[in-house]
Amino acid sequence: MIYFDNSATTKPYKEVIDSFMKVTTEYFGNPSSLHRMGGEAEKLLNIARKQVAELLEVRPSELIFTSGGTESNNLAVKGAALMHRNRGKHIVTTAIEHASIKETFHQLEELGFHVTYLPVDREGRVQVKDVEQALSGDTILVSVMHVNNEVGTIQPIEKIGNLLKNYPKILFHVDNIQGIGKVPLNLQTSSIDLCSFSAHKFHGLKGTGFLYVRDGVKISPLLTGGDQERKHRSGTENVAGIVALAKALRLTLENEKKLLTRLQQVKETIVHGISELEEVIIHTPAQGSAPHIINFSIKGFKAEVFVHALGEKDIFVSTTSACSSKKQSASSTLMAMGVNEQIAKSAIRISLSYDNTTEEALFVVKAIKEMVNQLKEVMN
Amino acid sequence: MIYFDNSATTKPYKEVIDSFMKVTTEYFGNPSSLHRMGGEAEKLLNIARKQVAELLEVRPSELIFTSGGTESNNLAVKGAALMHRNRGKHIVTTAIEHASIKETFHQLEELGFHVTYLPVDREGRVQVKDVEQALSGDTILVSVMHVNNEVGTIQPIEKIGNLLKNYPKILFHVDNIQGIGKVPLNLQTSSIDLCSFSAHKFHGLKGTGFLYVRDGVKISPLLTGGDQERKHRSGTENVAGIVALAKALRLTLENEKKLLTRLQQVKETIVHGISELEEVIIHTPAQGSAPHIINFSIKGFKAEVFVHALGEKDIFVSTTSACSSKKQSASSTLMAMGVNEQIAKSAIRISLSYDNTTEEALFVVKAIKEMVNQLKEVMN
Ligand SMILES: Cc1ncc(COP(=O)(O)O)c(C=O)c1O
Ligand SMILES: Cc1ncc(COP(=O)(O)O)c(C=O)c1O
Repeated sequence: MIYFDNSATTKPYKEVIDSFMKVTTEYFGNPSSLHRMGGEAEKLLNIARKQVAELLEVRPSELIFTSGGTESNNLAVKGAALMHRNRGKHIVTTAIEHASIKETFHQLEELGFHVTYLPVDREGRVQVKDVEQALSGDTILVSVMHVNNEVGTIQPIEKIGNLLKNYPKILFHVDNIQGIGKVPLNLQTSSIDLCSFSAHKFHGLKGTGFLYVRDGVKISPLLTGGDQERKHRSGTENVAGIVALAKALRLTLENEKKLLTRLQQVKETIVHGISELEEVIIHTPAQGSAPHIINFSIKGFKAEVFVHALGEKDIFVSTTSACSSKKQSASSTLMAMGVNEQIAKSAIRISLSYDNTTEEALFVVKAIKEMVNQLKEVMN
Repeated sequence: MIYFDNSATTKPYKEVIDSFMKVTTEYFGNPSSLHRMGGEAEKLLNIARKQVAELLEVRPSELIFTSGGTESNNLAVKGAALMHRNRGKHIVTTAIEHASIKETFHQLEELGFHVTYLPVDREGRVQVKDVEQALSGDTILVSVMHVNNEVGTIQPIEKIGNLLKNYPKILFHVDNIQGIGKVPLNLQTSSIDLCSFSAHKFHGLKGTGFLYVRDGVKISPLLTGGDQERKHRSGTENVAGIVALAKALRLTLENEKKLLTRLQQVKETIVHGISELEEVIIHTPAQGSAPHIINFSIKGFKAEVFVHALGEKDIFVSTTSACSSKKQSASSTLMAMGVNEQIAKSAIRISLSYDNTTEEALFVVKAIKEMVNQLKEVMN
């Protein structure tokens, strides 16, 4: 099996599952309970929070554990907009965000907020000057993703952060769900107020994630109740999942240090290999894109056909983001980049992890070439 | 170790952890992915949904998996209130709900809704006539818990449901997080529209739960994004956690059939035993209370002292609900029942599971008696 759909989800590391197992079996107490079993669970939770904070060079008090990337994004955007709605009603995002941002902005529009959806260039990149032009005295929030999940384009987060330093009343949220462990991002120097993460994208478990909330930044809670997570996110904490998340993050960041060059080579091998096919159009920009995502179309061929045919060979790739893959419409990211609709509908995404190898890359390139040639023969 | 804090959280069944392990290791695909690994994960999700639906005698389409009880309660209450806000602004609940309901109603009050908090009698029970009197043409939602988590009182859900049949525009939500597997509740005959569950209260894993939403009932999503869970709850599904939840529910309902009488005996043994102490006041009503919760005060003794002293003997009980246990205030449920504040501050909750035995009960009664007598000697 060759798993090339790591932007949809990743295989949890064995050590991550082992940590989960140990905690859920031996330390099942409720961290809010007064007795020793509660205390032990609380201690594990605090250690995990401290580990994640150290890995990201932030304070433990700046982390809110959530049920995943979608909740982190919803909490950041709704939490910021609702908390500061009396200060202004204008919120800004881009045309290429993940559905968990896009739909959340739509929902806020229905509640009376005004939204600017920033365009992107042909490489899928937002222009800092467009961000600047969009701002007004009524703006309370700007949300821009770090790495686009469909084409891999890296956004100019640090530059936008520098711009927003001049607007201390505007909160800056970054969806770093695809970037973490692949493209470095310093939360401090980029002046980020809110930043979303999802564990199952870095070999942690589904149903866990977190939101960075800079100390001093106020947001409304989405889940109210027992006041866990410093009142930002109520609900009995998934202690085992959080301990597992901390381990997954550590291992991923270690791999980033050790294996980034190899990952880039795997990507290069694929890009280089498929470029030899004249039918191939590569959408992922050659410069300023993440090391793990390659998006391309094979002109004249439907993407679904390819995904299924590769699946028969135990090679797993995707058409677009996983949650949009069953909708028939063309990728909105590619459309925003000005890609023709027909071409956009043939788009295939390969997304890698540090587990993937050059051998796998060569095998997949060969398979794609064979399939294109076979299909061409059938069609002639 | 004697674990008597099962209303705070339960020990996951071994079979539940095994299911989680297997799915998270072997079927880690994203259920939205088009390829076979996605399809396999989606299939497991569908099977789990069908199992839960059969166990509760509802339709698979009526279940929304969430990250736990707090999210289920928030989704039900905010989702209903926001969806139907143009129809009316009045919402009704009781004075003894869990924080995840109470705080959510508070938040809705800030957003302009009017709330009636129904009183309870000395046994902690809401009166159906009080519900009726509270209703007006502006009422859109009534939320009443099934089993109170602090004292165990069972609320007249079926009667309230029957009353609300006459008000087809009012949605009826029930927090059944403490009742499931302990006190039968038929969702159909009680005319319930929305019903909350949390897996870690029935030996499933923390971070998983679900909300029953009767077919045809409309609520606004709390988490927007990739439109998972029929658009009611976006976010990559925690497939392994959901499979584990289905297993936990099946095992719990089997235990309910087999072991309910034994559970009642364990409770009886404790009630009978501690009643012999003249300092003991039992708050849990003798009739119409759940078989797993016993709430009592030991006059003149601080609850924390007892929790810690029992903890030293490896016996784990609690003062109040877990998430309130670190706050110094007296239990709001006991206060609503008219218990004197001083007495309320001495309240101890013992909460059982089907794993507990009469031997454990006798052991704990003996420990409590010894402690009371020792402390009395010290104080004289
Ligand atoms: C960029 C981006 N944001 C948000 C999400 C949502 O995260 P989750 O699947 O944990 O809900 C994803 C993945 O689905 C993503 O790729
Ligand atoms: C009655 C009741 N409702 C809601 C909750 C919240 O559930 P969870 O801990 O899964 O967030 C609890 C337990 O904490 C409860 O006892």
